[in-house]
Amino acid sequence: YQLFGKLGAAVGRVNGLAVMGGDSGIVLPIVAEVTPTQSSAGGHVIATGMLKDIAKEAVQNVSAVIKKVTGEDISNHDIHIQFIGTYEGVEGDSASISIATAVISALENIPIDQTVAMTGSLSVRGDVLPIGGATYKIEAAVQAGIKKVIIPKSNEADVLIEDYYKDKVEIIPVTTIAEVIEHSLVGEDKAGIVEKLKNMSNKKIDYAARSKKVAGSDDV
Amino acid sequence: YQLFGKLGAAVGRVNGLAVMGGDSGIVLPIVAEVTPTQSSAGGHVIATGMLKDIAKEAVQNVSAVIKKVTGEDISNHDIHIQFIGTYEGVEGDSASISIATAVISALENIPIDQTVAMTGSLSVRGDVLPIGGATYKIEAAVQAGIKKVIIPKSNEADVLIEDYYKDKVEIIPVTTIAEVIEHSLVGEDKAGIVEKLKNMSNKKIDYAARSKKVAGSDDV
Amino acid sequence: YQLFGKLGAAVGRVNGLAVMGGDSGIVLPIVAEVTPTQSSAGGHVIATGMLKDIAKEAVQNVSAVIKKVTGEDISNHDIHIQFIGTYEGVEGDSASISIATAVISALENIPIDQTVAMTGSLSVRGDVLPIGGATYKIEAAVQAGIKKVIIPKSNEADVLIEDYYKDKVEIIPVTTIAEVIEHSLVGEDKAGIVEKLKNMSNKKIDYAARSKKVAGSDDV
Amino acid sequence: YQLFGKLGAAVGRVNGLAVMGGDSGIVLPIVAEVTPTQSSAGGHVIATGMLKDIAKEAVQNVSAVIKKVTGEDISNHDIHIQFIGTYEGVEGDSASISIATAVISALENIPIDQTVAMTGSLSVRGDVLPIGGATYKIEAAVQAGIKKVIIPKSNEADVLIEDYYKDKVEIIPVTTIAEVIEHSLVGEDKAGIVEKLKNMSNKKIDYAARSKKVAGSDDV
Amino acid sequence: YQLFGKLGAAVGRVNGLAVMGGDSGIVLPIVAEVTPTQSSAGGHVIATGMLKDIAKEAVQNVSAVIKKVTGEDISNHDIHIQFIGTYEGVEGDSASISIATAVISALENIPIDQTVAMTGSLSVRGDVLPIGGATYKIEAAVQAGIKKVIIPKSNEADVLIEDYYKDKVEIIPVTTIAEVIEHSLVGEDKAGIVEKLKNMSNKKIDYAARSKKVAGSDDV
Amino acid sequence: YQLFGKLGAAVGRVNGLAVMGGDSGIVLPIVAEVTPTQSSAGGHVIATGMLKDIAKEAVQNVSAVIKKVTGEDISNHDIHIQFIGTYEGVEGDSASISIATAVISALENIPIDQTVAMTGSLSVRGDVLPIGGATYKIEAAVQAGIKKVIIPKSNEADVLIEDYYKDKVEIIPVTTIAEVIEHSLVGEDKAGIVEKLKNMSNKKIDYAARSKKVAGSDDV
Ligand SMILES: [Ca+2]
Ligand SMILES: [Ca+2]
Ligand SMILES: [Ca+2]
Ligand SMILES: [Ca+2]
Ligand SMILES: [Ca+2]
Ligand SMILES: [Ca+2]
Ligand SMILES: [Ca+2]
Ligand SMILES: [Ca+2]
Ligand SMILES: [Ca+2]
Ligand SMILES: [Ca+2]
Ligand SMILES: [Ca+2]
Ligand SMILES: [Ca+2]
Repeated sequence: YQLFGKLGAAVGRVNGLAVMGGDSGIVLPIVAEVTPTQSSAGGHVIATGMLKDIAKEAVQNVSAVIKKVTGEDISNHDIHIQFIGTYEGVEGDSASISIATAVISALENIPIDQTVAMTGSLSVRGDVLPIGGATYKIEAAVQAGIKKVIIPKSNEADVLIEDYYKDKVEIIPVTTIAEVIEHSLVGEDKAGIVEKLKNMSNKKIDYAARSKKVAGSDDV
Repeated sequence: YQLFGKLGAAVGRVNGLAVMGGDSGIVLPIVAEVTPTQSSAGGHVIATGMLKDIAKEAVQNVSAVIKKVTGEDISNHDIHIQFIGTYEGVEGDSASISIATAVISALENIPIDQTVAMTGSLSVRGDVLPIGGATYKIEAAVQAGIKKVIIPKSNEADVLIEDYYKDKVEIIPVTTIAEVIEHSLVGEDKAGIVEKLKNMSNKKIDYAARSKKVAGSDDV
Repeated sequence: YQLFGKLGAAVGRVNGLAVMGGDSGIVLPIVAEVTPTQSSAGGHVIATGMLKDIAKEAVQNVSAVIKKVTGEDISNHDIHIQFIGTYEGVEGDSASISIATAVISALENIPIDQTVAMTGSLSVRGDVLPIGGATYKIEAAVQAGIKKVIIPKSNEADVLIEDYYKDKVEIIPVTTIAEVIEHSLVGEDKAGIVEKLKNMSNKKIDYAARSKKVAGSDDV
Repeated sequence: YQLFGKLGAAVGRVNGLAVMGGDSGIVLPIVAEVTPTQSSAGGHVIATGMLKDIAKEAVQNVSAVIKKVTGEDISNHDIHIQFIGTYEGVEGDSASISIATAVISALENIPIDQTVAMTGSLSVRGDVLPIGGATYKIEAAVQAGIKKVIIPKSNEADVLIEDYYKDKVEIIPVTTIAEVIEHSLVGEDKAGIVEKLKNMSNKKIDYAARSKKVAGSDDV
Repeated sequence: YQLFGKLGAAVGRVNGLAVMGGDSGIVLPIVAEVTPTQSSAGGHVIATGMLKDIAKEAVQNVSAVIKKVTGEDISNHDIHIQFIGTYEGVEGDSASISIATAVISALENIPIDQTVAMTGSLSVRGDVLPIGGATYKIEAAVQAGIKKVIIPKSNEADVLIEDYYKDKVEIIPVTTIAEVIEHSLVGEDKAGIVEKLKNMSNKKIDYAARSKKVAGSDDV
Repeated sequence: YQLFGKLGAAVGRVNGLAVMGGDSGIVLPIVAEVTPTQSSAGGHVIATGMLKDIAKEAVQNVSAVIKKVTGEDISNHDIHIQFIGTYEGVEGDSASISIATAVISALENIPIDQTVAMTGSLSVRGDVLPIGGATYKIEAAVQAGIKKVIIPKSNEADVLIEDYYKDKVEIIPVTTIAEVIEHSLVGEDKAGIVEKLKNMSNKKIDYAARSKKVAGSDDV
């Protein structure tokens, strides 16, 4: 059986890519949902799928980007991130852009193109960083019927795929999470979120002003 | 002795199904209750029955669906989920739809049909995902006198049950938690909750609006 | 020396029963007290006596019943549960109804009949579930001078006690925590709590209404 | 050098008694202090001296008695309990009445008679429970110049001290923490706290009323 | 591929320096971002990159300096600190001044000169303390095209770099975090933060007054 | 290189003393800083330097004295305590009076005489308790150019220093933390804090009154 189809578009579901056993790739679906939190101490990020240490840290780094985009509006919500079918565990941080994409789709209710797959690490400021196994991952994506694969621009030179695959898939190198969203979300509504992500790091955080606002309304 | 009967209907109790020792099935009762929390820091999900790692993550994934359905109304309550008689531990995530059904029954005070048993994994957005051991589980259900067994649609092709069993049990393949509830809860009141579950993922979360509402009434 | 007498009635103290070394029973006193909490984050359930994993989960399951009975009134209080003299550890969940009885007695200040002993597991909805070692436990109770022993109805068929004991002790099989309280607490005041326990699971939790009430008075 | 003198009276310091190596006793000073808490989440009980598991549980049981006596007044305070000179660790629960005495002295600023030593376990409802090594502990107390030793009444029959010691020390058997305080604190002010301890368990906790009061004043 | 360029200026990114295998240096990029917190219990410092114990403590020490500079304004924000490409773990505390610089840059939105690299431990009061491997680190910086290296003044005598390197790099010895900022941030806006850091420890904390202010506005 | 000079006076920095390898002493600098907390759940005590279990408990005991002196004013602040250069770990509790001195200096902004070194354990009520290795520590202090060494009065008889050292250093035996502050802080401002420390334990904590005050202003 297949865990998810690779056609159409779906909210909160993304085709990630992983390496198995060192020399073969696999499509790794990730599902995200945002819910009210049960806790009056604020929301949490809850990631499942037997994540190992570096993968857990990747979730924390992605959450920096999410919190930056959503601001305090996320404070009463939990973010659930589910790796599907990964009973043997998830290693590494190359799912970072996939997680970010799934969560942003869930938050904004904008569908993700299911013919796209992606792999890429992420800095807490939204830069896409290089990953390993780019070639194996792209081959696996093609075999699964994927039409476009997003990879870090810094991995572009590593990609050594056979001629057989070259005609079947479009490789999209990216440097920021804004570009990832641009190439993976569907419909016009994505323009606003892409703009937000581009501007994300370009201003001084007026944290003093925020504090005052919070003191004046939210906590009082 | 038997832990629970398989007749009639009961609130907050469901017949789950599990595999023992790799090649035999068992009916695994799960009981749920929702109570006010003792904690002023908000409610918790408390699951007992010696759950192992993947089973604990399954509880977290189910709670995403529960919180989505109940919204902030659950924030002053604890959700108790009790696996009965599992002193040797609970492995895997195939009890996910059983947990969701027991909790929703407890929350809504709508009884569950005790002639039904079920097995199925669950995404945080309410999709029913495939499980292992479908055939063993169905055979165990029949032997225990169960009349209907709910399984993931993606497992339909795996079911290889002998002719002897085929006449004794109805197999119900499902793709969403809404269908699980449709087939397991008793009475008219379930219509509203089925509708809620169907619409669950079909709108942008207006988290900014929620925050404001909370700031304006609940936290101020 | 004896840790407690087996005569009269006492608030917050109950004669539990346990199995030692697999083939001999023992009377295991449990003491409960309810106190204001020192924590502004709400109350806690604090159980001592070197409890092992299943026994700790039993305490959590019992707390579901307690919180259901007391509602939010318990939120500023700690519940202390002390197993007496168990330096080697407490295994299993068969003390569940004893814990529930001791805590309810402490909360309501209604004495427990000290000529009664009891053993029984408990569901989070108040059902009494079967335990092991019923015969050994009853024999130990008789030898300690106990006059009545409460056991799960589902264990009734297991009880194989010699004629010598049969005349000396009354066996009381029960199916719900309400019946346990009915047979173990002393005086008229127990009627109210028995009624509350019987009705415990018979209504939809109006959790939305509660939330509003809390928002309107308690948290504002 | 000696850690503390055995003369006069001191607030928050008590002469506990312990067994070393199985067959010799030792005087074990315990010091308590109550301070404002740094935490806005309420106060904590903080015990130092390399306590092992049963000793840590003993601290929790003693705290039940303390919280019952002080009520919510303790909620903005930390209780510090320091075992002096116990770098090898503290085992067992026989220091329970010593801890309770030191903390009550610190809370009420009533000095403890330094010519008294004590040993005894404690239930969460204030009963003094038996301990081991009574004879060794009494001998150690006499050798250290102690004039009175408080022991659990249930240990009275165990005390086998030589004639040589009998004239030098007064043995005081007790059954409740109220009697411990009666025999160890100095001055008239102790009468109030003794009375409070005697009445401690003799009334239904009006927890519903308390909750309302808290909602009406403290949390609003 | 290269993780980051060494040209121009960037907000929240700094070139740290580390020793690998005991005798070779490496440029270790660190990225920081400050975001609203999801938690209503206040913000957290979240550091990723497989940090070992001493490195985790270094993050705590740096956070003392950050909190001193920002005051309570930081209380609704999380500080994310990401070590890039350190899948094998981070040892030691010599990245302390790099972390402080990256976070201050992110907070104030003032870019860091990417032609500068730095190494240095830090006291909780802002003193730069000595580190190991100064020579190896400087050599690595030069090989990576770095033009200036900031080191602790107390390490100045340790630096034994070959003539070949001496002309290619400027060594800047420092004694306080204020000097680090002076030499690494770009533009006029840094003057204010340098001044703040210089004055950081030169006054009695009027903690009583602060408390009152908080009580009067923020918590009420 | 030297971590800190031994001349003049500095706020929040103290020369502690430790034993290395059992038979040689070392000067161990400790630095403290007090900062606003990032957490809305109140402040924390954060100690770094690879502290082992007894050293961690020593920090908790010292914090009792600090909280007693500062009262609730400390509740919005973190206390950072940094052991410098202790990558191999800190054992024992003999740095207790050094920690207390560094933190009090940081809180009050009163400099510590850097020609003084000190060693001493501390009770939660402010008594200075004996330590080990007094002679080795004093010798190390003299070799480092220290002019005065504060030791516990109960260690006075242990000090066996050679004639060579006797003329070079003044030994100051103390019994309370007030005396430690008297001999180590610089300037007139210390008089107030010495007085506060002397009176610290001489009154009943009016905890009920405090609670009311808090309820009436701070939490409401
Ligand atoms: Ca990877
Ligand atoms: Ca604020
Ligand atoms: Ca399974
Ligand atoms: Ca808010
Ligand atoms: Ca049992
Ligand atoms: Ca609410
Ligand atoms: Ca003992
Ligand atoms: Ca309340
Ligand atoms: Ca280093
Ligand atoms: Ca305050
Ligand atoms: Ca020592
Ligand atoms: Ca209060």
